[in-house]
Order: sequence, then structure tokens, then C-alpha cells
Amino acid sequence: MTGFPDIKKISYEGPQSDNPLAFRWYNPDEVVEGQTMKDLLRFTVCYWHSFRGAGSDPFGGATMQRPWDDGSESVDNACKRASVAFEFFEKLGVPYYAFHDRDIAPEGATLSESNANLDQVADVFEAEQKRTGVKLLWGTANMFSNPRFMHGAATTCNADVFAYAAAQVKKALEVTHRLGGENYVFWGGREGYQNLYNTDMKRELDHLAKFFHMAVDYAKEIGFKGQFLIEPKPKEPTKHQYDSDAAACINFLRAYDLMDHFKLNIETNHATLAGHTMMHELEYAGMQDALGSIDANTGDLLLGWDTDQFPTDYYLTTQIMLVILKYGLAPGGVNFDAKLRRESFEPIDLFHAHIGGMDTFAKGLKIAALIRADKALDRFVADRYSSFDSGIGEKIEKGTVNFKDLETYMLDKGEAAANSSGRQEMLENVINRYLDRV
Amino acid sequence: MTGFPDIKKISYEGPQSDNPLAFRWYNPDEVVEGQTMKDLLRFTVCYWHSFRGAGSDPFGGATMQRPWDDGSESVDNACKRASVAFEFFEKLGVPYYAFHDRDIAPEGATLSESNANLDQVADVFEAEQKRTGVKLLWGTANMFSNPRFMHGAATTCNADVFAYAAAQVKKALEVTHRLGGENYVFWGGREGYQNLYNTDMKRELDHLAKFFHMAVDYAKEIGFKGQFLIEPKPKEPTKHQYDSDAAACINFLRAYDLMDHFKLNIETNHATLAGHTMMHELEYAGMQDALGSIDANTGDLLLGWDTDQFPTDYYLTTQIMLVILKYGLAPGGVNFDAKLRRESFEPIDLFHAHIGGMDTFAKGLKIAALIRADKALDRFVADRYSSFDSGIGEKIEKGTVNFKDLETYMLDKGEAAANSSGRQEMLENVINRYLDRV
Amino acid sequence: MTGFPDIKKISYEGPQSDNPLAFRWYNPDEVVEGQTMKDLLRFTVCYWHSFRGAGSDPFGGATMQRPWDDGSESVDNACKRASVAFEFFEKLGVPYYAFHDRDIAPEGATLSESNANLDQVADVFEAEQKRTGVKLLWGTANMFSNPRFMHGAATTCNADVFAYAAAQVKKALEVTHRLGGENYVFWGGREGYQNLYNTDMKRELDHLAKFFHMAVDYAKEIGFKGQFLIEPKPKEPTKHQYDSDAAACINFLRAYDLMDHFKLNIETNHATLAGHTMMHELEYAGMQDALGSIDANTGDLLLGWDTDQFPTDYYLTTQIMLVILKYGLAPGGVNFDAKLRRESFEPIDLFHAHIGGMDTFAKGLKIAALIRADKALDRFVADRYSSFDSGIGEKIEKGTVNFKDLETYMLDKGEAAANSSGRQEMLENVINRYLDRV
Amino acid sequence: MTGFPDIKKISYEGPQSDNPLAFRWYNPDEVVEGQTMKDLLRFTVCYWHSFRGAGSDPFGGATMQRPWDDGSESVDNACKRASVAFEFFEKLGVPYYAFHDRDIAPEGATLSESNANLDQVADVFEAEQKRTGVKLLWGTANMFSNPRFMHGAATTCNADVFAYAAAQVKKALEVTHRLGGENYVFWGGREGYQNLYNTDMKRELDHLAKFFHMAVDYAKEIGFKGQFLIEPKPKEPTKHQYDSDAAACINFLRAYDLMDHFKLNIETNHATLAGHTMMHELEYAGMQDALGSIDANTGDLLLGWDTDQFPTDYYLTTQIMLVILKYGLAPGGVNFDAKLRRESFEPIDLFHAHIGGMDTFAKGLKIAALIRADKALDRFVADRYSSFDSGIGEKIEKGTVNFKDLETYMLDKGEAAANSSGRQEMLENVINRYLDRV
Repeated sequence: MTGFPDIKKISYEGPQSDNPLAFRWYNPDEVVEGQTMKDLLRFTVCYWHSFRGAGSDPFGGATMQRPWDDGSESVDNACKRASVAFEFFEKLGVPYYAFHDRDIAPEGATLSESNANLDQVADVFEAEQKRTGVKLLWGTANMFSNPRFMHGAATTCNADVFAYAAAQVKKALEVTHRLGGENYVFWGGREGYQNLYNTDMKRELDHLAKFFHMAVDYAKEIGFKGQFLIEPKPKEPTKHQYDSDAAACINFLRAYDLMDHFKLNIETNHATLAGHTMMHELEYAGMQDALGSIDANTGDLLLGWDTDQFPTDYYLTTQIMLVILKYGLAPGGVNFDAKLRRESFEPIDLFHAHIGGMDTFAKGLKIAALIRADKALDRFVADRYSSFDSGIGEKIEKGTVNFKDLETYMLDKGEAAANSSGRQEMLENVINRYLDRV
Repeated sequence: MTGFPDIKKISYEGPQSDNPLAFRWYNPDEVVEGQTMKDLLRFTVCYWHSFRGAGSDPFGGATMQRPWDDGSESVDNACKRASVAFEFFEKLGVPYYAFHDRDIAPEGATLSESNANLDQVADVFEAEQKRTGVKLLWGTANMFSNPRFMHGAATTCNADVFAYAAAQVKKALEVTHRLGGENYVFWGGREGYQNLYNTDMKRELDHLAKFFHMAVDYAKEIGFKGQFLIEPKPKEPTKHQYDSDAAACINFLRAYDLMDHFKLNIETNHATLAGHTMMHELEYAGMQDALGSIDANTGDLLLGWDTDQFPTDYYLTTQIMLVILKYGLAPGGVNFDAKLRRESFEPIDLFHAHIGGMDTFAKGLKIAALIRADKALDRFVADRYSSFDSGIGEKIEKGTVNFKDLETYMLDKGEAAANSSGRQEMLENVINRYLDRV
Repeated sequence: MTGFPDIKKISYEGPQSDNPLAFRWYNPDEVVEGQTMKDLLRFTVCYWHSFRGAGSDPFGGATMQRPWDDGSESVDNACKRASVAFEFFEKLGVPYYAFHDRDIAPEGATLSESNANLDQVADVFEAEQKRTGVKLLWGTANMFSNPRFMHGAATTCNADVFAYAAAQVKKALEVTHRLGGENYVFWGGREGYQNLYNTDMKRELDHLAKFFHMAVDYAKEIGFKGQFLIEPKPKEPTKHQYDSDAAACINFLRAYDLMDHFKLNIETNHATLAGHTMMHELEYAGMQDALGSIDANTGDLLLGWDTDQFPTDYYLTTQIMLVILKYGLAPGGVNFDAKLRRESFEPIDLFHAHIGGMDTFAKGLKIAALIRADKALDRFVADRYSSFDSGIGEKIEKGTVNFKDLETYMLDKGEAAANSSGRQEMLENVINRYLDRV
Repeated sequence: MTGFPDIKKISYEGPQSDNPLAFRWYNPDEVVEGQTMKDLLRFTVCYWHSFRGAGSDPFGGATMQRPWDDGSESVDNACKRASVAFEFFEKLGVPYYAFHDRDIAPEGATLSESNANLDQVADVFEAEQKRTGVKLLWGTANMFSNPRFMHGAATTCNADVFAYAAAQVKKALEVTHRLGGENYVFWGGREGYQNLYNTDMKRELDHLAKFFHMAVDYAKEIGFKGQFLIEPKPKEPTKHQYDSDAAACINFLRAYDLMDHFKLNIETNHATLAGHTMMHELEYAGMQDALGSIDANTGDLLLGWDTDQFPTDYYLTTQIMLVILKYGLAPGGVNFDAKLRRESFEPIDLFHAHIGGMDTFAKGLKIAALIRADKALDRFVADRYSSFDSGIGEKIEKGTVNFKDLETYMLDKGEAAANSSGRQEMLENVINRYLDRV
């Protein structure tokens, strides 16, 4: 009935396996750097793309075959869909899932109706979590699909819409809390602008900060201890999204005194749309203690929109895992915010996609761990900056010299000590050497 | 001898003029919003592109005909060049110029020799400033051209190079101070990385902050009261420049407690390379009290590198002037950090380019001022957010409501009040209406 | 009932008018280069964006208020909508419209039902054309929205889908012919690939060529004399669209012997997505006698998808009209393949958008005509290449010299005659001078 | 003296080797698909980047340590450099090299002096080829660095420059012929425009075609039987390069009747600058019998200029080799048109870079060959299009049906047969499976 393969759970068969419905790299119980892959990677299936994505695009309608879904916006259908989703989580063996409120339950005619729908479906989720042991990585509220949010939610020009959004997040927080969610995410769907001619950016950002402070207060009130996350993205659907990249997000958090309460949920395709590598965004957030969780997908760098493809590139996952192993991720996770191509419309494609993504991350993890074990990059880097470990460099770092001291030093010396090669090509070869070994 | 037109000063002839060597819009004494165009626009010629730019590109050598320049790296040649530059500033009628230390005086074999060269040429600049009344908008140090800086200056991995850069900035600050510079700019030429595999980003940024604090201290020591500026740019020459956009710059300044001492020098082509409009970067900086000065050029949005073209688009200059009139610019200015196309190699092309740029800004100023006088955009914007001026919106802004209050309000109301059209197309037509009228 | 302004027809009030519902530049009867603006510009409203565009985007649903539309897929609704559209065409005073088969009539359960629906609605169109004098610039078939076409239409891997597409174009051609369409367009909606791993590009392009030859044959059979057009676009919805730019289109036409039967319908936003200026694509097509018609919109060069905004930039329309005046356009036209922003959801926004677009083109036409009248660019260009009008240059053009002759000539001369400045900045100023004058 | 490692030749040590100065994948004598790696890959070192590249960029000067080079433009220095280059070719074990005329010999004061210099250095090359067995893959003429070519070479507006270029190509062809070059390449350095306002595109392209026909005639006259190649690139140094991508090149060749004489030299970084994958450009050229040779490098897709990095990505080389194995490459080759990062300035970095590039291609070759041996993609593709092998599909391909037949068929059938999933995710996993196995 589901079109899912008739197996209890996808199993690990090792790299030599030919079986497209087995894992070749993801072995949940394998220990890497003292943790099991399962605990380290914290794989998460996103509900929206995988169970609500219909395959439509701006030029065509739904394509996805989802035999369990009657296509209606009824609560019954939503409940049935939830059960199928958990069947999928189980077969795949992922420990987590994530959702938006409106993905899992239909919007009603009024806010109270919507809330009631959400509660009903949450009952099913609660039961399924209990039954399966699958947990909620995070919840969030969809505040961008309904036309009400056309001008934004917390950054709308319409005060009622702000109020509506507040009420919606309040409820989503409660449901997330009830379901044991370990984080709560804000993706600023339409928090941005289409046009500066009609926009008061300062007033909108002030409102956004107020909104987040209210959320922090309410979480405290209900005892929700999960991590709050915001998610950088530079554009789409609006021309300019306020959370454009990690730097813009952190600057906002600092400006409005929110750094203690929020971290970032970083996504590959959003990073590249902003002109950054994923590794950059992760490292930049990590070094500022703001790395919270990741959305694991990939973009097509020759296309200018969010393609949200499943990750299958070992270089990408090696780079991601190098940073994650450095800074840690929990209570965040590796969430497949990725969607099937519109033409991959059969239920089995959900398996191909997730298995490929999980294996790609697992192999990336193993490569990264090996590089770290050998200090293959770390030693090079430490050595490269060693002139700051003693002598004039040490004084600079300790803050015991000023411009005049440094001028005296250099007038005396005449010219700086010679540079060393950056060895970019050699280091890229090193990555390949480790990729070959795993 | 110079190839410059044989006129005392380019004069204003009005919009109907056919004379390519006259201003049609820039009338220095014309008063706009209570200030003369001259004081409002504070036009600045940059020394490097206009007097040191040779027309080379990665695929070919110098093309520029500069009959006054013997091509040598002698101090004599540097002094002669300076006089020609001031002849140009005078004929053009600009009140300001800007320079890098190494543009105006040749680098010597040692730091002391370089400093001595700089002093000698600064004598000429001082005399020429006195003679002509042309002033220094800002000075800066070139810490990217010499191979010594291949790995960065303040963010280098080589402690000696950091020391060298400190000594160089110390001297450049002194010369800027001596010449009455109203600002001092840091463009982080190679402050960034080519590759994360060999880079310790945190350590590099810590060093950069130390460097800036030393500069602040030294400025205080010598009594330099000019504004410090940093300049956003996302890439080129390095893959990732740390000052990638206004958000990254301001985040850095906040993180390292430098917001009181630094503002931003924002450039059109750098904005667009970062995926932002110039108007966005200006407004974003302005609303955070960080708009310092602008580099007035334009990029080619279909090319991925810094083309630094002279601005000739009225829409661009109207947008820029809308923000500048809102937040003010002094002690910053409108600096033509723009270069002639490689094929525009005759001296007279310097005039065509600057006259076009100045006229384009002057017309943009007049259009922007007219739009502001009529409140043609402001009224629309104020009205658009008016739901926050009273009722629930006012309470939200005042911080007297929380999530629970807003939920109660919305459960009661059921649905938010209707939205209004954003009228983007109408507003774009409004801009054209004002463009037509000036 | 329609929300349209209660006026008979938008009238021309001249540049000084403050009336946002009047033309300030488009005066249909004004004569430019011997033709009326109406005949020269041949403005066309596209049915899909303006009457079927609902404002949905990948992140949210319909927003557009269309009080005349009951939202159903009934033939009745389609007929009512058609009447409203013609009311709009009349009020706007455009001479042309354009459509896709599935825009104007709902798809039925079978092909014959779809055809019958189309015939019924075409009756209304025929009557409305007669009543109003508004004509059909072109028709086309939508072969990308239905999931059937997920792998392409003429380039599908499913032979039945090819057959279906053939039947659909046959019918669309007949209806276009019946309604007096002056052109027939193929936009290759999904003629391309998502992924080369599963694609046989050669086989797909062979099929596409066969399809076009069948269309040519059938047009001949039914006596349709309109111009066939294909439309360049590089990406979206597929990763690679076969008709990626003018060069790819013309290369395809040459390779498959179709140059006699097809020209190009060139769109601004498609040009820029391909990395070309609109002016480039027009000139490139024009010089190869392949410029057929244009889709008049604009893109946002900082966004990587087709935003299809209404054109409001005088520089863009001046450049377009310079090329159109050079090569001519009829039987093509200026078709507003542009859509309202999602937030511009009121019926009156349709007027603001089209009035702005038409005025922008009309002013661009006047600027271009003035530049041409003065030969302000032509003289410069003719002079620039004049070394090819006599001497060695003339011999090169006539083909009377070969490599050996040219070597002899140059060995003798030693070095080439000096170059002249390309004067890009001066020429950009010239454009502004003419923009100021109109 | 050279800074090269003191080894006779880099040897193959297998994938497990830790030696950064050994090959881990490139084993010249290993047979793949019936050919040795050496004959299949035909690795080529480019002279310009590797022996003339100084590490300068638009923001800074030369960095490269080249102890054998005295920095002068003397013929002696050129001859010494040539010997060092051949030492490098030998140690690396590459069978081919490639050059521009002005790379290998300095330009003189007159054309005859330049020719004489070239002859002198060619003597050294001839001797070194004989001594080492290293062969010339192709020669070309640099017609973009000298200011003379600022407006183009064959597409210049200056007839004398056209003549100069003709004389220069004549000589470069002769030298290439003398040295046994197997191809002759035209990269249209400045064959394009900066600005359409001053450009007569049609006249320029007519000239370019004349130039190529003269080259064809002269090759015939001197008995040069090598393959002529042109090289797609969309931009840089000019805003628009006429040979913008494979489609533009082939369209030009068709338009001017040059298809019999020219093929394409396709470069990864040029492909991506044009918005295409390398695999696309190769397949597109291959299917039109126009794939001649490749420039093996990679770009940084987040940067907008030609970074010419050494290739180290197995996915890229696997894709390239899949197409090369399909269409063949000889007499072309795999030419490392790649340059060291500016910070990789030591001679040893030349080895790291080339070894990495060669190994990456060798592994890509092995992966591609294994995929082909298993028909892992081919079977899927054949099956996907099988509806065209019989029935209505076969008739379509054979051309025995027309629009009316297809309409009859489809009216009868009502709806097309169902589509199958495109399986993009599964196929991407397949690539990883093969990458894991090699």
C-alpha cells in the first residue's frame, strides 16, 4: 500500500554491497571518535519535503505518487500520513524527524480550528514516537505559505499578522515541547523584503527582535529547554531575506541581545546561494559558538535557486564533518532538508535518496575522523601560524606591543621574514588520499 | 604635455549642453536640501585608479597613455605625477582626493626608505593642497600588492608581516593626519583566505581586531580625529574576504568592541559581488549608524569580478542619494573608486569618465531630493506600517503584550485584518516620473 | 465587478501628468521613424501571467484578487475570464494579446475533451477579437505543466508523450490559425534535462527537430503563414534547457535545416539568466536574420531565477529599441511576458504594471530614435572601423589577400598603426544626454 | 638549482602510498579499454601557467620563486627556461606540452625580430623534444597580451592589427608544424567586445571567419595536417567573448562553413563561467563531432572569474572521462591549463599540483571505465528511451508519421502511457558506488 520495500529495516551491508536498498557506509552502531554514528550524526527526516512535497514547481503541478495520501486536507488524512511517515522512519532507521505545524495538520477556518487540528495530529505523533522510539529534533511554524504572510510574519507591515504569527509560534512551541523536541527553529520564510521603496527595514527588524524575545520568554514560562535556532538564507522567496547568511544572523543576534538564546541552523544550499561554502558558514558559526544544527542538502551551483538536492558528494560531507567533529552538534542534528527531483516520483525514490544521503555523510564522517586522527591538516595549520607562538608574534597576541613597538621592531629588521607556500594543491591532494583510504 | 583640455575648470552649462567637457547637472554652488552640491556630494578623485592605473588586466599589459609619467619608480616621477593630479583635480573642480601610501610614493628597499619616500612626496601634496584648496578625504595603506602580504596583512600567518603592516599603518596614519585627512580607511586587501584547509579563521580575526585596536590607540595618541572606516567586499583577490559585506563587517565590529570607532565605506561593485544592491548595503549600514562614506562606481552584474566602472545610471545614483540624504555622509564623501576601461587609454578619457560620474550623481541627487520633498515614497511607507501606530500594533512596539496576549487577541478575532498591495510596480513608475521631471 | 478603473481607455496625457492611470509616453498615434508607436511597438498582453497567474510561488499559495474568476476549471469560467481580459485589453489600448492553449481553456479528461473545451473558448475569443479589433500576436501550446510532460514534450523519453505533444500542437496551430495569429511560438518548457546520467541528448534533439519539421509541414498543409518562433532560455524548470540562448537555438536550427522556418522570440530575463545582455541577444539574432519577436520583461540580476518583472528601466528599453529599429520586428511584437509581484494582488496593479511597461518602452523608443536621427552612435562606429574601408583593410574584406601577403605587409611596416580609444565612458554619457533630452 | 626534487621520474606507487611525490593512480602503462593510460589521457603541461605564470593578480605582483629564471626578456633566458621545462616534463613523465608563441620567446621591437627570437628558441625545443621524446600537443599565438590587441586580433577595428595577427599566426603555424604539433589552437583572447555601443558585431565576425579560412588555406599550403581547435569561453578579458560556449562556437563554424576544419578545445572553468557543466559541453560537442581536446582545470563555482585551479575532484574527472571514452580524444589531449595558487610559490608546488591533477584524472578514468564495463548507466538510458525502439516511437524516429497520424493515435488512446521515475538520486548513488570500488 505504501510502495515501500517490504523489509523491516534498511541494514548495513558494507561498501562492497550492490544492494541499492542497503547501507554501505552508515552503520549506526559503529563507533567514531568515541560515539556511535547514530549519536554523532543524529539523522533526521524532514516531514515537509518527504511527506508533503508534491513535486510541483513554478512551471508544473504535482507529480509524486503517494498512494497512502488521499490528497484531501482532512485531519484523517493527516493522521494516516503520519503513520506512513513513521513506517518510513523505522525502515530507514533514523532516530529523528522534524516538522512545520502546517505540514502535519491542516489549517482550519480559524486559528482555534487550526490549533485543534494540530492537537489531534500531535496525538498520533506522540503515540508513534512512543511506539518507535523515533524522536523530534525540532518543530517550527510555517509562517510563509498562507497569503496572510505575504508581507512577512514577524516583519510584516500588518500588526494583526504579527499577532497571528505570535499565536502560531506559541502553539508550535507548545506542541514541540509536548513531543519532546530538542530544538525549535525559526526559518524566516518571508522575513525580508521584495523592494526597498516600500520597506522600513529598521522597523521590521525591531519587530523581529521583539518577536524573538517574546518567544524566549514564553519558552521559559512553559519550561521548554530546547535550543532556539535561526536559519540563514539570502534570498527566495523574498528578494532579500534578513537572515541572509551566518554573519547577518549573528550580527542581528548581537544587536538585539539574543546571542544567549539562539544558535544557527545552517544549510548547504542556503550557504551557496549567499556565495559562501558550507564549510565557511559552519566554521564561522562554530568559532562564535553559534553552530546549532544543519540542514543537509546540496545545491546546484550553476542554478540560482534552492534546489535542495540530496547530498551525494563525499568532499562536501567530509568538509561538513571536519567542522562538526571540531565543534560538536548536539542537541542539533543532520536534517535532510532535501527533496526528491520532480521526476523521481515513486515512493521507492524516497529510499534511494535518503540512503544515498546517509551513506554520503557516513563516509564523510569516516574520512574526516581519519584526517583528524592523523592531524593531517591540524599539524600543517599549527605550524603555519607558529610565528605567533613566540617572539614578536607572541607579544602581539598577548597585547604587550603597540604600533610604535612594532614600527621599531620592523625599522630595525628592515623587511619581514620570508613567507612559506600555502600548499593549497598539496592539501587538496591530502583530502583525496584520505578519501581513497576509507 | 598632460593631454588635458586647455581649460581652467570644467564649467556647468546645464542639461541642454552638447559640450562633452562641461557639466550638465553638477553645479557645485546649487543648493539642495539646504546645502550646496559641493558640500553635499563631497566628490573625491581616487589617486590609484586615475593616476596609477595602467590598464593592465590578467591577460594583458599596460595601455594607458600618461605622457607626464616616465614610468619609473623614482621619487621625482612621483612628485611630478602629484602635480599633474592636482591640475586634474582643479580642472575638474572636485574638492577632495584619496590615496594609498604606495600609490603616491615608491616603496624603498627598507621600511625606513619607504617612509622617507612617502615624506618627500607628502611635501608636494601638502603644498598642492595649500595652493589649490583641494583636501584629503582619506588616506590608507596598501597592504596587498607587495608579495610580503600574500597571506594577508593583519590576518597573515607570518608575525613579522603583521608587524610590518602595523608599522606601515602607523606611518600612513601620520601622513594622513599631517595632510588633514578627514577619514582613514582600511580595505582588507588580502584579509581573508584562499582555502579553509590551511586557515585558522578565529586566530586571524582575533589578530585583525588587535590590529584595529592598536590603530585606535595610536590615532588617539597623535590626536587624529578622523573617522576610521572599513570597506566591505566579499571576494577578490582572496576567495573569501573577511569583510564580506556590511553585515559581516558590523558583526565583527560588535564582536570585538569596535563599533564606537569604525564606520563603513560602502562600494557599489562590492555590494553587488556580495549579492546585495548598493541601496541595501547603505540602508543596512545607515540604520545601524555605520554609514561612513561611499566608493562611487558600478559593476557589471553579468560579470563576476570587480569591474569598477564609472557610474552612469540615474537609477543607481537616485537610490544612493535617497539613502545619503536620509542619513548624511560627512565626514565621508563620494569617492570615484572607478577605473577607465583598458581601451579608454587617452588622458581625455579621464575627463569623460569623471564628468559623466559627477553628472550622474548630481542628477540622482536632484531626483532624490524631489522625491523627498514630495514625500512620494515616505508617505506610502508610513501609511503601510500604520497598523503599528495604534491598537495592537502600538502595544507590540511598546512591549506591553506577550505571546499569550497576542494569542488571546487573535483567537478572538479568528483571522488577521486584510493585507494591502505592496504596489511595487506603481512605486517603480513613481521613480520614473521623478526621473522625467528633473 | 472587475476592480478595473471606470474609464473607457487609458489616455495619453504627456510626461508632466501626475495621473498614475494615464500614459505619459505612449501615444499610440505619435509617429516615430515613419510609423505610429502603435504599429512600431505592437504591444501585447500575455494571457497567462495576467489572467491565470495566481501569485503562488514555491513557498506559498495564490494571492491574486480576481473577483471575476470563480476559481473553477469550468469552460464557463474560462469564457467569462476571456471577456474580462478583452475589457482589460481595450482599456489599456493594446493591439495584441498572446496565449497558451491551456491558459484559455481547461484541460479535459481526454485529449478530445480538451480539444472541445478549447474550441468553445476560442469562439469567445473570436467574437471578442471582432468586437474590439484586438488581434492575436501568437498562440502556443503549454506542454510543461501537466505531469505527463515531466520528462519533456518533443524531447521526452516516452514516445506516447511525443505523440500527445504533436496532437496538442496540431490543435493549437489550428486555433491560432483560426484566430488570425501572426506567429506561433515554441517555448521549450521542459525540453532539456535535469541530469546527464539518465539522458541521451542526441536522441532527444533529433526528436525535437523531427517535431519542428512536422509542425512546418502541417502549417503548410493548413495554410498557416505565420512566423514560427522558438524562445531561448538557459535553465528553469530544467537544469539545462536545450534552447539555452540565441546561439544554441540558431545552431540547432542550422544543424537540422530549420533556419528558413524559424526565428527567435527573445526575452530579457532569459537573456540575463544565460549571462548575456538583452541587447546582445537581440543584435546576435538580428545580424543572423533571426530576430522574430520579444518578450518584454526584466529580471533581477542579483536573483538567479526568472522573476519576469515588468520593465521600468529606460536604459534597457533604449537598448532594445535601438536594435529593433535597426532590424524591424513585425510580424513579431513587444509582448509583456511579465508578472505582477505576488504582493501586488489587486486588479488595479495590472494597470500600474502595464502602463509603466508601455511608457518605459515608448520613452526608450523616443530616445533610440533621437540617437539614430543624430547618428550619435553610428558615426562613431563607422569611423572606428574605417581602416577596413580602404587599403589593406579593404583587401582583407574583399578576400584578395592571404596570410603571406599580410605577413609581407607587416614585416615591411614593422608595427601596426596606433589604436584609438574605445571611448566607452564618453558613449555612456551620450546615452544619458539623449535620455535627458526626451 | 631548479628546486625540483632530486628524482629521475615520478613513479607509480599505488593508492596506498603516502609519498606526496609519487603517483597513486596514474600508471602510464596500465591498460584501460585497450589503451595504456598514457595514450588515452595524453597528459600535457602548459608552458604559460607553469613556466611563465608569475603569481601576479589584479591586486598584487609576482610571487613565484623560479630560481632558474633571471627575470629578463632575453632569448638566452628563454632558452634556459625551456631546458628546465623539459626537465620538469621528464620528471613528471608527461608525453606532451603546449605553448603560445610569446610564452616561449620574447617579443622583439619589430615583427621580424620577434620571428627571429621565436626561431632561436624553437631550436632548443626541437632539440629537447628529440632528447626526451616529449611531444608538442599544440601551439598557438598569443594575440591578447600586447596592447596592440586591445580591441581584438582578428576582430579588431584596426585593419593593421588584423594583418599583424595574420602574420603572427602564420609564423606560429610554421613553428608548430616544424615541432610536429598535433593540433593548432585559437583561443580568442580579446575576440569579443567590451561594449555594444562602439561595436559592429557582424563586421567583426565576418573578419574572424575570413581569418580562419586564411589559416586553413595556409595550413594546406605548408602541409600542416594537425587539427584546428577553437576554445569556448564566455567572458574575461572582454565582457562578451564571441566563442562564448560550445553552442556559439559551433554555430559560428556552421554559419561560415568551417565545420570540416575546426573542432573545440573545451575547458572546465570556461564551461562553468558560461553556466554549463563540463560534462554538458563535452557531450554537446561530442554529439556534433566537434570534441577536439580538453583544458583540464577546475573553477571555483562561487567565484566569477577564471581561477584555473588544478583539478582534484573525482566526480568531475569521472564525468569527463565518461564522455571522452565515448567519443575519443586523440589527436587532442588532457592539457593542464591550470595555474598554481599565488601563495603556492615554491617550485615543488608545481609537482604537487600536476601529480594531483594527473592522479585525479587517472582515478576518474578507472571509475568511468568500470561504469562503462558494467553498462551501469548505459542500460538505464537505453531502457528509458525504449518506447522509441518500436511501435509509435519507432515510426516517429523513422519519419513515417505526421501530426495528423499522431493526433489520430492519441485521440484514440486518450492519454499517454505512464512515465517512469527519472531516478536521479539512485543514479547519483551508482556513481558513488563505483567511486568506492576503484
